[in-house]
Amino acid sequence: MAEIRIGEYLFRRLKQMGIETAFGVPGDYELALLNYVEPAGLNWIGTPNELVGAYAADGYARLKGAAALVTTFGPGELSALCGLGGSFCEMVPVLHIVGYPSFAAQASGQILHHTLGDKSYDHYVRMSSELSCATAVLKDPSNATAEIDRVLNAMMYHSQPGYIGITEDVVKTLVPASSLDATMIHMALSSGTEDDRALAAIMAALEVSKNPIVIVDGGAGRSSWATHAIELVKALKSLHFNTVMGKGIVGEDDPLFAGCYAGVGSLPATSKAVEQSDCILWLGHMPSDFNTGMFTEDVKSSLVIDFQRFHITVGQKQFQARMNTVLPRLCETIKSSSILSQRTLPAPVEYFPEVPLEVPSSIISQAWLWPRLSSFVKPGDMIVAETGTSQIGALATKTPQGVYYWTQAVWGSIGYAIGAAVGAAIAGKELGQYHRMIVFTGEGSLQLTVQAMSILNRHGVVPYVFILNNNGYTVERYFEGWDAAYNDVPEWDYSGLFRSFAPNLTTNTVKARSAAELDKLLSEESFQNATIPQCIDMTLDKYDAPAGLRAIFDFKKKMAGA
Amino acid sequence: MAEIRIGEYLFRRLKQMGIETAFGVPGDYELALLNYVEPAGLNWIGTPNELVGAYAADGYARLKGAAALVTTFGPGELSALCGLGGSFCEMVPVLHIVGYPSFAAQASGQILHHTLGDKSYDHYVRMSSELSCATAVLKDPSNATAEIDRVLNAMMYHSQPGYIGITEDVVKTLVPASSLDATMIHMALSSGTEDDRALAAIMAALEVSKNPIVIVDGGAGRSSWATHAIELVKALKSLHFNTVMGKGIVGEDDPLFAGCYAGVGSLPATSKAVEQSDCILWLGHMPSDFNTGMFTEDVKSSLVIDFQRFHITVGQKQFQARMNTVLPRLCETIKSSSILSQRTLPAPVEYFPEVPLEVPSSIISQAWLWPRLSSFVKPGDMIVAETGTSQIGALATKTPQGVYYWTQAVWGSIGYAIGAAVGAAIAGKELGQYHRMIVFTGEGSLQLTVQAMSILNRHGVVPYVFILNNNGYTVERYFEGWDAAYNDVPEWDYSGLFRSFAPNLTTNTVKARSAAELDKLLSEESFQNATIPQCIDMTLDKYDAPAGLRAIFDFKKKMAGA
Repeated sequence: MAEIRIGEYLFRRLKQMGIETAFGVPGDYELALLNYVEPAGLNWIGTPNELVGAYAADGYARLKGAAALVTTFGPGELSALCGLGGSFCEMVPVLHIVGYPSFAAQASGQILHHTLGDKSYDHYVRMSSELSCATAVLKDPSNATAEIDRVLNAMMYHSQPGYIGITEDVVKTLVPASSLDATMIHMALSSGTEDDRALAAIMAALEVSKNPIVIVDGGAGRSSWATHAIELVKALKSLHFNTVMGKGIVGEDDPLFAGCYAGVGSLPATSKAVEQSDCILWLGHMPSDFNTGMFTEDVKSSLVIDFQRFHITVGQKQFQARMNTVLPRLCETIKSSSILSQRTLPAPVEYFPEVPLEVPSSIISQAWLWPRLSSFVKPGDMIVAETGTSQIGALATKTPQGVYYWTQAVWGSIGYAIGAAVGAAIAGKELGQYHRMIVFTGEGSLQLTVQAMSILNRHGVVPYVFILNNNGYTVERYFEGWDAAYNDVPEWDYSGLFRSFAPNLTTNTVKARSAAELDKLLSEESFQNATIPQCIDMTLDKYDAPAGLRAIFDFKKKMAGA
Repeated sequence: MAEIRIGEYLFRRLKQMGIETAFGVPGDYELALLNYVEPAGLNWIGTPNELVGAYAADGYARLKGAAALVTTFGPGELSALCGLGGSFCEMVPVLHIVGYPSFAAQASGQILHHTLGDKSYDHYVRMSSELSCATAVLKDPSNATAEIDRVLNAMMYHSQPGYIGITEDVVKTLVPASSLDATMIHMALSSGTEDDRALAAIMAALEVSKNPIVIVDGGAGRSSWATHAIELVKALKSLHFNTVMGKGIVGEDDPLFAGCYAGVGSLPATSKAVEQSDCILWLGHMPSDFNTGMFTEDVKSSLVIDFQRFHITVGQKQFQARMNTVLPRLCETIKSSSILSQRTLPAPVEYFPEVPLEVPSSIISQAWLWPRLSSFVKPGDMIVAETGTSQIGALATKTPQGVYYWTQAVWGSIGYAIGAAVGAAIAGKELGQYHRMIVFTGEGSLQLTVQAMSILNRHGVVPYVFILNNNGYTVERYFEGWDAAYNDVPEWDYSGLFRSFAPNLTTNTVKARSAAELDKLLSEESFQNATIPQCIDMTLDKYDAPAGLRAIFDFKKKMAGA
């Protein structure tokens, strides 16, 4: 009977799931395991630290559907936890594989490095269990493959991180190669009759609706249903919208797209159109503060059809139905029904004010920057926007169909964007879909994970890193400490850093001190079609914020004062 | 009755304990709290990310006895956990203060950013409880000051991290200012009669010993007993030694110092002297792998007097006595006893081979480097050595009395050194003891936390950053993957990075490609007395390791093969 090492089994399982790259930082307890990455047909991409590795895995999984991160017991795994917390709450399946000391060493009663000195080996898995839908530390080779499969199945089912701890000795244990033939039950399957009932209820609501709309949001494990969202807005021919978290699924160049809905942070025509609808199909609704203009949405829940991973709510009635199986059936049912002929199809909404063509000679303003970037962004681009002013600002940059776009609207961890961009770009290359990688980040955010520049500039990726350099944590000034020193960050030479992280590469680094300088750059064809990595250090005023963000804070202040 | 906000109470308590600086990264849930840092008389030092902040706090606490780190709920606090794990197992008291969302917001039933999206607020404190001797999330203002005091007392008693979560609303609640007058019971107090019994047993052992020795190790909360160790070796007039973790307490220029004991990693004369002793006073014994030449020590436990924070073991008998109270009494008792006259006082041991004076023209070797640095190191210097070849190599650099030296011999987290150096230097300045800060680190380790360069070069600190640039994780090659790609790291321009992280400062960056180049640099008086930050990028062979490290791996290999 053919046999295979458990370490190789693990990576071959990942390969079967479509994972072609493992990210991570090597550490001695994990080295035995890393010897099986390439034999299993995966690539290894080492990251400068574990947090960058976790963000890269998150970015990769958002595009490819799953990812793997490998770290070492103790310091290594703990350094990754912030990244995995983000994957957990934003429903991104990342497998965290941790190399453990051998059981022989554990049983020796000696104090091993990377432990807490108390000869206990379960502290860290307990910590990770708070951020994982399933965990296993493989102890018994006889059930190791079953345990691996259990964690992988749970990870894909819930679309959340899983954790597998594997010791140096278990890694090398032989198991039957035929274990690889067992079927994985990755995805949420149809729930049968509940799907039928939900579908009937949705169609009943649509039949009486005069102006249904679709809001494409970003919850519920986006990659499992994103393509169906595109089908749905085509089939329904209604106005449709996105949210902070849902941007990048359906193209904003569609004539019936009518803006990003973020409560009082929305443009007036957008919120009017949403709030006047009598039937809102809300895909992957994620009612977090950053995704709802700080809870300033104004729609009646009785009018909402709420599509979630494991349930669909129509008005007040909840069905244990699955959006990823109901959505394609809904598209077909709409096409074969008469509902489109029963209502007046909507006219496009001019939600976005005409962008002024003249270029101010002054400093780059948030009001000018984001609309200006619209003509720079092209189908095929991948964009990652950092939490903060980039996240809200980028709502005013039009992303046509075929642009991949992500931002963290629940976790909101600064430093995420540049790390996630690494993984997303690698995933895009593997899928043959990579065109350009564009990162929008603040300089304060970038400081947390700046070493990610080093790997973003390798592996054939040609990034554009747009840095909003505004003397500190601007979005925090709006919360508290308008002029407080704690909201300042030290000045760095970002161009010098960008070059120094990849000294053997030719790169282009630009300091854009005015709108005119940036406009000129964006207009150059050689910049638009760059073949070398680009870093654009943009000077902005420290108090400047996108209009949407100001509107939200003004509203909150008014409410607090009322 | 005078009142004070709870936020200010917290920081005033820290000030009373001698903490003058708080480290951290601001985040919106914590901003209300940060407004009280300066009014309480503390300085705020923002760090580029939380992991660097945690390492800085650790370095600060190792010198000043305690430190504070402030982060925000969720992503912020989780990013710091690796640093706190190190503080926990190496007994360094760091208070982790976490800013929580207000109870009003928590009770709203809405999904707040930085949460896991499940409206639960206790995941993270549970995670931190694995790495803390005490935790509190302040909920009830009426017992908030008592809870703060409880955590602070536990932290100082156990010499380990504590965790305090504080919401935006509790921060601003008023409490009586007189709460600040309550006495803190920081330190481990004498255990009375158990101390007496332990002291009697130690003296009885010393009275019959012909060649007692002292090993100054690094466990048991070093800062609480380090000064007594210096007294003890003076009083006892015996040979004395240190360990990887105990280096930097007693000066190696003392004539009776006879080397670092690390099992088969020791120099022959050192291990001979240790292993022939009939009575070993072992201060803060920490039997971790990295601290014992991978468990290759060879001493009979019946001959060891083991001094720990909460117990002292004489041969096989354990007393619930405290080393920090027993040690000063032991010194006095020895001085007034006749034991010194009853035995032949030892002659100095020539444990260290004479350093060859000629400078090789070739690449810098580990064998040449570390002894060469001995004449560069001066009393008053602070040195932090990274885990890996630096940690073992630096054992061959003589550190005279008055040199502060740290390395992580349990936690072994790469990336630690440059972060810890930040905090240690700040602490040294506050104590008026700062002279020069010297960091030894590998380039692979530095990549994890390279942004720490940015703050190391500020605040009036003039560091020397010596980078062992050897094409990857050399120490890991000795464990596994001698030529594996996963042990390589990308090439960076460290000089460019050093300058770019502090563009407004004049710095000196040097690339030392040969021993001759480095020797010349070290000989220059302007370098020795540098007034601007120095970065020395040293080229080493990728397979080169200190002799002690090679000896340990050779021994382990022989044992495995036997």
